[in-house]
Amino acid sequence: MTRDYPVSSIRLPHDLPLDSGQVLSDAEIAYESYGVLNEARDNAILICHALTGDQFVASEHPVTGKPGWWDRMVGPGKPVDTDRFHVICANVIGSCLGSTGPASMASDGQPYAMRFPVITIRDMVRGLVGLLDELAIERLHCVIGGSMGGMQALSLAANFPERAGRVLAIATTARHSAQNIAFHEVGRQAIMADPAWSNGDYYASETSPDAGLAVARMAAHITYLSEDGLTEKFGRRFQDRPDGAPGAKSFGFDADFQVESYLRYQGSGFTRRFDANSYLYITRAMDYFDLAEEHGGKLAQAFGGSEARFCIVSFDTDWLYPTAESRHIVHALNAAGAAVSFVELSAPFGHDSFLLDVPALDRVVAGFLSQ
Amino acid sequence: MTRDYPVSSIRLPHDLPLDSGQVLSDAEIAYESYGVLNEARDNAILICHALTGDQFVASEHPVTGKPGWWDRMVGPGKPVDTDRFHVICANVIGSCLGSTGPASMASDGQPYAMRFPVITIRDMVRGLVGLLDELAIERLHCVIGGSMGGMQALSLAANFPERAGRVLAIATTARHSAQNIAFHEVGRQAIMADPAWSNGDYYASETSPDAGLAVARMAAHITYLSEDGLTEKFGRRFQDRPDGAPGAKSFGFDADFQVESYLRYQGSGFTRRFDANSYLYITRAMDYFDLAEEHGGKLAQAFGGSEARFCIVSFDTDWLYPTAESRHIVHALNAAGAAVSFVELSAPFGHDSFLLDVPALDRVVAGFLSQ
Repeated sequence: MTRDYPVSSIRLPHDLPLDSGQVLSDAEIAYESYGVLNEARDNAILICHALTGDQFVASEHPVTGKPGWWDRMVGPGKPVDTDRFHVICANVIGSCLGSTGPASMASDGQPYAMRFPVITIRDMVRGLVGLLDELAIERLHCVIGGSMGGMQALSLAANFPERAGRVLAIATTARHSAQNIAFHEVGRQAIMADPAWSNGDYYASETSPDAGLAVARMAAHITYLSEDGLTEKFGRRFQDRPDGAPGAKSFGFDADFQVESYLRYQGSGFTRRFDANSYLYITRAMDYFDLAEEHGGKLAQAFGGSEARFCIVSFDTDWLYPTAESRHIVHALNAAGAAVSFVELSAPFGHDSFLLDVPALDRVVAGFLSQ
Repeated sequence: MTRDYPVSSIRLPHDLPLDSGQVLSDAEIAYESYGVLNEARDNAILICHALTGDQFVASEHPVTGKPGWWDRMVGPGKPVDTDRFHVICANVIGSCLGSTGPASMASDGQPYAMRFPVITIRDMVRGLVGLLDELAIERLHCVIGGSMGGMQALSLAANFPERAGRVLAIATTARHSAQNIAFHEVGRQAIMADPAWSNGDYYASETSPDAGLAVARMAAHITYLSEDGLTEKFGRRFQDRPDGAPGAKSFGFDADFQVESYLRYQGSGFTRRFDANSYLYITRAMDYFDLAEEHGGKLAQAFGGSEARFCIVSFDTDWLYPTAESRHIVHALNAAGAAVSFVELSAPFGHDSFLLDVPALDRVVAGFLSQ
């Protein structure tokens, strides 16, 4: 993918210090905003996006033309009500939708590629806080995120406790498990095994590691869905043939089953909008995420200084970040004496439930923001 | 991989009819056997292997030098007691350890490669029954299999009900679910995305699609283990550095976590002993497996003619073929009026439990064979 559309962004006026000890200079943060910031500048909500998400939370995606990824949640009269709140969503550093990442130009005028520093979730949050500084927003009404967005919300609460009055973390975890890391490693190896990856130096090339990136996306996509959801959606149904004939075994290697066709479509569509090196860097940041480790090995210590109210939401069919992970966060918040509400919602869509039609989630979000 | 070691095999004297409508001519079946066949020829046990298994159930693997894959279960005085039973284990057609598969020579003296016909589990069983015919074994004391081996055991019971007095199916299913198919499709796409795959025509080439095959293996391997097992074995522990320094974040893309290193090792080791095209064909056969569909859409009908005794075993941490799949089989056997015992064993290793140290399984196997 190459980016040939305009984005709104600001350039941070200072170097961004990183957990690796390196710094990121001239970092650009691309973002979208909705609704009006009030005079007290205290009605802002920051929405943090997931691994392959972007800032187009409630605006049309410039590549795919699809509605914003949380269009159902964010807008006038919606649970995150842009008639009341000023909503900001920024592309994380390391990504590829306008914020500085591996595809961006380094100071030598060449793309960073694998010279881009390895970043962490906390580094992403430093970038977001840099944006808030530039926007002169001292304290958010709320920071919200699902999946990797939830990691950022928790990290912001832990590392910049004065910056948010409310923290809403959905379908997330305070640390990546061995299985989480394993699935990401498969994706990274699929990308790096693609000869077109060329050690990350493919930006000037006519080819890019689309095949590897598509496989990575396919593997990850399975983890976003529940087994029951997949069975209900596809079961063992066959794909209709291009000539209109009803589906059946082809005794070949075309996509016979609907689920195969669906996965291939997910994989190839993804390569149009995402950069393979960004996928490497962001999955690495997620695998490195262990909020307790950053705070003396005790998760409760991470939240020691927080006066924010927390709301933690999990889904009963999410096997990527199962409810036990949310409960682990809630126990730590309880131990830290924080104000926390916790709900496990029932929804059939697995991890992806946070993006989909789950009216109970709408009610939780609207209710928490109004408290 | 190339095969440069001798194997015991027989050539079937007749064409093997296949579910696709094609036939396989001059099929060779490679097998190992243990223990003495009695005069009545009624003490034979056929063990069916899993996707990446082979006939070396209790003998050293000719490539890896490792002990047989079920060495703990099969041998003198062991649960499958070779002092009492004549044990046979054959490489399935489509595989690459001596039985006819995509790497074998077709009649034109060139490897079949993708000209090899797409096969099914029932086709594999036809090959096994062909072997039994050649060995003049009319009726097995028992057919045993775990995972894909269990599919073969069930298929043999359904399609050749007179050939086995007992059927022991472990950690298996009567049909591949959408999620099962999805994971296999990721593996196939990883192989086919590897330019060295060359549409399957790599046997005369200096390169083979090892990178793609390794990724396929890594993705599959995660599904063989339980999340808790992965956490217990690896957690978020870091890999020690080659210079002996203790592990920590490298802020790079080397294998930082032990689980990453383990998966990479699993992937690369696998390519030494397995053929990528065989992986495509065998996963396809598994995805096509739906024992009910073959029998008028009713699983109970598949077992209608069977007078065998069945034993179905599942593991509580197996999320690839969870206990519900075994229960589904048991209900069908009950409906068919078959004699069936069923046990869900508790073991921490996920799907791989059937291969590992689970003493309760040893007792179930020994007990069932003695009944």
